[in-house]
Amino acid sequence: MAKDYKVALLLDFYGEMLTEKQRDMVDLYYNEDMSLGEIAQNAGISRQGVRDSIKRAEGILYDMEEKLCFIKRHKDLLEKVQMISSELDLVDQDNENYYYSPVIRRHVGNIRQLIEDVLQE
Amino acid sequence: MAKDYKVALLLDFYGEMLTEKQRDMVDLYYNEDMSLGEIAQNAGISRQGVRDSIKRAEGILYDMEEKLCFIKRHKDLLEKVQMISSELDLVDQDNENYYYSPVIRRHVGNIRQLIEDVLQE
Repeated sequence: MAKDYKVALLLDFYGEMLTEKQRDMVDLYYNEDMSLGEIAQNAGISRQGVRDSIKRAEGILYDMEEKLCFIKRHKDLLEKVQMISSELDLVDQDNENYYYSPVIRRHVGNIRQLIEDVLQE
Repeated sequence: MAKDYKVALLLDFYGEMLTEKQRDMVDLYYNEDMSLGEIAQNAGISRQGVRDSIKRAEGILYDMEEKLCFIKRHKDLLEKVQMISSELDLVDQDNENYYYSPVIRRHVGNIRQLIEDVLQE
């Protein structure tokens, strides 16, 4: 099967809804880039067994996103945050070019820090 | 059973993971404030049946939040957004009191609009 790297993102969001075994196999396959054969050898089961487990897990992950849309919502949020950051650049620029207000500079800096915090969550 | 209004919030986030019947019963009980007896009468099943269905649905919803933490993450995001909004007030205030830059005023307004959009998603 062709590797579908969207699965790594789905695993980040919904991995906790899989069993530990499923999660491990999907992680090894997509994040550690191991082959089905290598995973099978390590787990002591057949290559076909690994393949079926991963397929089942992918089905669960895709179903969760279809129902809950948290990845889509997160993407929308990141776009908005990016736009806020661009607007902040323009505030900063106007302030630096014309007004030199240290108060505005400080609060814009605080907002940038808060945006960083949001992006790291 | 005492009504636990956190369930209404859980339903907003994870309701799509319930069956339609479960979702309806939880919605009628928590959002429409109907009694178990009224829901039972409407659905043509026993009061105990409704109670069991709702309890089961609540278990699923709590389990999802325990594993995925999307409500907690959303709450953290809202706190950060509130803090950004407070910092914007201070930028605005400094600008209005001392600099009167229409450019800064406009971009602060744009950021407030983007924040509104984030809050409405």
